[in-house]
Parts: sequence; structure tokens; C-alpha cells
Amino acid sequence: MAYQDLSTDALKSLHEQFATAYDDFRSQQLNLDLTRGKPASEQLDLSNELDGILDGFYVLQDGTDVRNYGGILGIPEARALGGELLDLPASQILVGGNSSLTLMYLYFDFMFHHGGWQREAQSSDGRIKFLCPVPGYDRHFTICERFDIEMITVPLVDGGPDMELVESLVDSDPLIKGIWCVPKYSNPTGHTYSIETVSRMAALPLRAGRDFRIMWDNAYVVHHLTETPDELANLMEAAFRSGTDASVIMLASTSKVTFAGAGISFLGATEANLKAFEGYLSAAVIGFDKVNQLRHVRFLQDRDAIDNHMAKHRAIIKPKFDLVLHKLNAGLGDSGVASWTQPRGGYFISLDTLPGLAGEVVRLAADVGVKLTPAGATFPYRTDPENRNIRIAPTFPSISQLDTAMDVFVTCVSLASVRELLGVQ
Amino acid sequence: MAYQDLSTDALKSLHEQFATAYDDFRSQQLNLDLTRGKPASEQLDLSNELDGILDGFYVLQDGTDVRNYGGILGIPEARALGGELLDLPASQILVGGNSSLTLMYLYFDFMFHHGGWQREAQSSDGRIKFLCPVPGYDRHFTICERFDIEMITVPLVDGGPDMELVESLVDSDPLIKGIWCVPKYSNPTGHTYSIETVSRMAALPLRAGRDFRIMWDNAYVVHHLTETPDELANLMEAAFRSGTDASVIMLASTSKVTFAGAGISFLGATEANLKAFEGYLSAAVIGFDKVNQLRHVRFLQDRDAIDNHMAKHRAIIKPKFDLVLHKLNAGLGDSGVASWTQPRGGYFISLDTLPGLAGEVVRLAADVGVKLTPAGATFPYRTDPENRNIRIAPTFPSISQLDTAMDVFVTCVSLASVRELLGVQ
Repeated sequence: MAYQDLSTDALKSLHEQFATAYDDFRSQQLNLDLTRGKPASEQLDLSNELDGILDGFYVLQDGTDVRNYGGILGIPEARALGGELLDLPASQILVGGNSSLTLMYLYFDFMFHHGGWQREAQSSDGRIKFLCPVPGYDRHFTICERFDIEMITVPLVDGGPDMELVESLVDSDPLIKGIWCVPKYSNPTGHTYSIETVSRMAALPLRAGRDFRIMWDNAYVVHHLTETPDELANLMEAAFRSGTDASVIMLASTSKVTFAGAGISFLGATEANLKAFEGYLSAAVIGFDKVNQLRHVRFLQDRDAIDNHMAKHRAIIKPKFDLVLHKLNAGLGDSGVASWTQPRGGYFISLDTLPGLAGEVVRLAADVGVKLTPAGATFPYRTDPENRNIRIAPTFPSISQLDTAMDVFVTCVSLASVRELLGVQ
Repeated sequence: MAYQDLSTDALKSLHEQFATAYDDFRSQQLNLDLTRGKPASEQLDLSNELDGILDGFYVLQDGTDVRNYGGILGIPEARALGGELLDLPASQILVGGNSSLTLMYLYFDFMFHHGGWQREAQSSDGRIKFLCPVPGYDRHFTICERFDIEMITVPLVDGGPDMELVESLVDSDPLIKGIWCVPKYSNPTGHTYSIETVSRMAALPLRAGRDFRIMWDNAYVVHHLTETPDELANLMEAAFRSGTDASVIMLASTSKVTFAGAGISFLGATEANLKAFEGYLSAAVIGFDKVNQLRHVRFLQDRDAIDNHMAKHRAIIKPKFDLVLHKLNAGLGDSGVASWTQPRGGYFISLDTLPGLAGEVVRLAADVGVKLTPAGATFPYRTDPENRNIRIAPTFPSISQLDTAMDVFVTCVSLASVRELLGVQ
């Protein structure tokens, strides 16, 4: 029965039960962490052969010595690999260093210095604006803050961002210069954008103008949790048909495929956009690490091999997701005080508490040694207007750590909810 | 005898001789390149064991898994390695990715967004200024251009930049916010700054104010061409004594130690400066590639091992420098139409033609298939006011390619000079 429908006495009894359980956890002096979307070391082990895979061969078919300077767009083989991930021709791929975040940051810098964003900002009160589907990825929001870009939230609904709202906002405000998207298994909600969403997204720049950019961060493109992967339509193709492909910037990386901190990243764009970005980058880089690009080409080979490799990741992390979902169902399934996602891919489970309780749940958990992502982190300016969203990252802890951490978490949500319903602090 | 002292007939005879030689080269359809300060593949081979050196060990003594996310300042072992190069404690080192250029670029971006440069620029006509010792490194100048920083040239004299001029410029113009330095075996002239220069450099921020930065790019710190290396005084220590260490930003990398395009880089600064820069970087990077940092720690070990490794580089490149100097001496030694440096380290030989001829020499060489660094490249805005400086990069070609290329080069200098003296085109 939902807690909201219980008598006060029944709630008081529950409160006692949860408070006792909570105090028990305190006595265990736990030190557990559910915050970071980091691969576990068993996942990293899957790619250990990367180091040494070159076996002394450093020269490409075209004669390029990958050890030496040069080549900002990346080696042809790695551009092709990125094309396999983003479903683009190699000619539309730039291969970056170990972080797609850096490519995004530099792309924003490029748009300010060489695109029209600086001019547009100066023509207003100094700021342009970006649309941010929520809940979303905190590091996207941090980039906007760094560049003093005002963020406007748009809720995610079935099939992706609320496109009605997106379109009306774009129509009404010419200072809106882009939108952040994690279109597949989105962080943290697990949404995959529908065909209709992709199609309307492709048409969006027709309303918004030429400096509009769709930042299509396909971070979880091959990160399925089921054997029947979600399908995501190809935005670049749809945009090409609409004549808006110059507004599409696609991103991906191998961070959660090989080594999280030592992978390679990809930026997909029209050839003209890549050429302009390459010119900009030439002042800031000597070319990204081509040796590591070649390592990744040798190791990941092609999309089939990548899919096989990702199946090994799934075998490690699926039981962790299952455990979290089992604990949530068992502890909160009938309670009516929380709802959560059932992701088919990606790295997170997104949970909503009763309005106003997320911060309290995070505080309660921290007090007994379980670190959660700060409440609000999934919203621009770190402010969740309803203070209810919590992002759970199950991949990094061991199964047994996760087991305990989820018991604590469920207890904290239950305790905070019952207190709220009883009106006690 | 100097060409200037020859009779017209003697010059005409020389002209015929050089023109014939030049036409001979044309018939050979050469395709040679003296432009880039790139290591030769034999040099890169010296570090081939980098790939595979980890042998499956990815976890540090402090428990850090180098494969995973995190750690913007770098792993402790790599920070210590950078400290060996820059003669700083590990706590004053940030370890970057494969390019110190990127660290410089990001540091400038940081100084604009978070240091005072933006404010200072806005208080004037929108520009700040930087001192650029010349001839210098084109990529330093490109960074200034990118950030719309006005460049003021200062000639290099014995012992480094003309410090009288540097000091008087700084005294007279508060918009001067820094100076680029390659203090050891400088690019392209091979200067190593004297103790007096370092000492006066350390005192410079006392005249210039707190936002002044000495960009101390120690790119060739271990790149000796002799067995008796030049000594460079420690600027950070001198600046600490003067209370100006906050103005010192040191840079180095392994680009010309291990793999040119796949090494690691270092930025040295006060701990407070590093902390501020780390905060800035947190929006742009997830942490640099720690796996590659650990590879370099295992391979380079410490300063003694680095020095041994660099002796192997010297064994490969010293004969190339010797060949270039031999060809210049033999072909131009008595001519009076060119002067050049005798570097004791670094990657370049800097040659001055008669005033006004550098562009013509580069054009002549290109026309017969020998690519030289564009005339002017060693000056801000790609403009050598006297049009006489040419940078020769001997390391990348083979000895036999270099032999031919230098014959062409000497012929082009001779031909252009004799034409100039004869007044013919």
C-alpha cells in the first residue's frame, strides 16, 4: 500500500522501523560511493591488451608514422572507426584525445571566437542561451556556465525532449543558439530519442538560424543493457535532407568502451565544419595522440568487434543494474514515494523522490557513509526546482558494496518520506 | 674573399656557376624538406618499448587505477618526473597530454577568463601586449594572434633577450602582460639565457604587476648537442627570492624525448597557481591520459636515465647538425653573405642572409624541390622586418637527403646573394 494511504499509526510504526535500520547502518561505519559513472576495474581489464598491441608497428599504410607530429583530424583508420560508432563517413569525423568533453569545450571556444556566438552575445546583454533537457549531464551544464551561456531547461518526456516546448522556445528567442542532447540511453534517465524527435530536431535549425548547434553527445551509443538495443535515427542524415547538417555536432568516445581515462574521442560534423574547426585547433594542438588512435583501431577493429566487446561489459554491469532495480522494487515498489527508470542502456538509474526530499536523502546517506551524487547535479546551476531527482551510478562498486549501499539508499528514501508524511524532522 | 669585395666580372662568373648548379638541381626533380623540427624515425625507435611497458600493471602505490577517470594534476610519479626536468618539486607540476602547446593555449584562455587579462584588455582598446624575443617560435606567436594580443619584438643578444629594452618597455607600457621565453637552446637561435638574464627576468614582474606572466618554455631542457651541457639558472628559485614566483609559468614535454606526437607535457607553477588552473581545467578535461603518464614514468625513470636516453638521440642527430654546419662553412664560410648559429643544443640552426633575401632563397629552393620554413615564420605576424632569417631543421631528413638539401640551400643563398650584388633579378 502506498505510504500516503497509511494511517498515522502505521506510518509511525514504519518510521520506527526505518530509523532503527538507519541507526544500524551508522554503526557499520560504511564508506561506499554511488556517485560516479565510472567503469569497474573488471571492465577496464577487458581492454588491458591495448598496451602493447602495436608490437613495434607504428607506420600506417599511407606512410604516416603515428609516433611523430601532425594530423589534427586523426589517422584515417581511427576516423573510420569513429564513423562506425556515429554512423558517418570517415571524412566527417575528427578524432580527439582522451576526452570528448575537451572537444566540446574547444568547440564552444571555437564558436565564440570564430562562429557567431561572441557577436550575438555582444549584441544582447552579453549572453546567448542554450536549451538543456533535464535531468541531464552536469558537465554539459558546466561548459555553459564557463562560457556564460544562459541555460533554459526543457523536460524529457517519452521519446526525448519536449519538442513542442523546444520549438516554441526557439521561435520566441533568437538568442537560443543550441541544445544539448544525449540521444541514446541518456544520462541519467536512459531515454533514447524517437524517430519523430530526431526528425523534429533536424528541422530545428530552420527556425533558429545558422549559428544554432545541436550538440549530439552520443556517449552511450554502444552501451546496451539488453540484447535488443534501442534504435536511434541518424540525425546527420535527417539534417542533410533538411539542409541543416551544418548545425549538427556529434560526439562519442571510447571512455566507457576501453580505458575511461585513456581512450580516444570523436567529433562528427560536416566536412566544411571540420575544416573550420581544424583551422581553429591548429593554434591549440599539435595533433592528438595518434599512437593511441592506432592502438584503438587495432583493438576495436569495427562495429561488430565493438559490439562483441560491449557484450562483455554488459555481462559485468547488467547484474549490478538488476541488483539496484531489485532493491528498489523490493524496498520502494509499493510505497508510492519514489519512481525510477528501467534503463535499457547507459550508466545510470534516475530516481525521483517525493518533491523536496532529494537533498535530505543525499544528506542522510552521506551521514552513514554512502556517497550519492549531490541533489541538483542533474540540473543547470545545480538546482533541481523540485528537489527530487537522484542519479544512481551502479557500475563502479562491487556487487556486495552495491548490495549494502542500496539497502542504505532505500532506507534513506523510506525514512525521509515517512518523516515528510508525518510532518516530523 | 667576401662576395661584396669581388669585382663585377668575378661576381658574374660566380653567378654563372651558381645558376648552372641551380639548374642541375632542377633537373633532379628533388622532393626534400628542411622545415619541421621533427625527430627522425630512428629517434622515435629509441622509445618503441613504451608501448607494452606496463605489462598489465595499471594500479599505483596510492591505489589509483590509471585506466580510470580523474586526477587533473597528474599521477604523483609523473609529476615527480616533470619536476626532474624543470627542477621543481612535484607539487609544483601539472602533467598534461601530448602537447605542451595545448597547456599554453589553455593557460592563456585561463588568464583571460579567470586572470586579469580580459579586464585589462577591456580597459584599453581591447588588447593586451606580449613581449616576443626574436627570432622565436611561430606557435607562441600564433597563440598571441588567436587571443588578439599585440606582439612587441625584442632582439635576442648574447645571454638572451635584450633585457635593457625589455625593462624599459615594461616600465613604459602597463598593457604588457608577459613575455615568451625559450630559455635553453632557444628556437631557432640556440641561445641559453645567462644567469644575469634569469635574475633580471625574475625581477621583471616587480615592474609589471601581478598579472604579468613569464612563459618559460623549456622545450629543449635536456636536448644537448655536446657533452658539456649549457647551464640554465632556475627561474622559479630566483623569482621566489624576488617574491615574483606567481608570475612564472614553466613548460616542458617529452615530445622530442619519446614520441613527438604521443608524449606527455608539464606545466610548472606555484601551488596556488596550479590550484587555480586545475579549477579552470575541470570544466574542459576529465583528466589527462594517466596510462601514458605511467608508461613515461616507467620508461624515463629519472633525470639520469633521461640523460642517458638523450645521449642516444644526440648520437643520431649530432652528425646531421655537423653536416649542415660543414656545408654552410664550405659553401658560404668566406662569402660574407650569410651568418648562422652554432647550436650547442635544441633542434635548429638559424641563418641570416643579406637583408631582403630570405624570401627569395626560400622561393628558389622550393622551385627545385627543397622545402624550407617560410621566411618570416620566426617573427610575429610572419614578418621578418629585415627579411633575412631562415630556420634550418636538420633532424628529420636522412643524412643523404640532408646532404643534397644543403647543397641546394647553399646554392640558393649564393645565387640570390650574387644576383643582389649584381643588381639582377
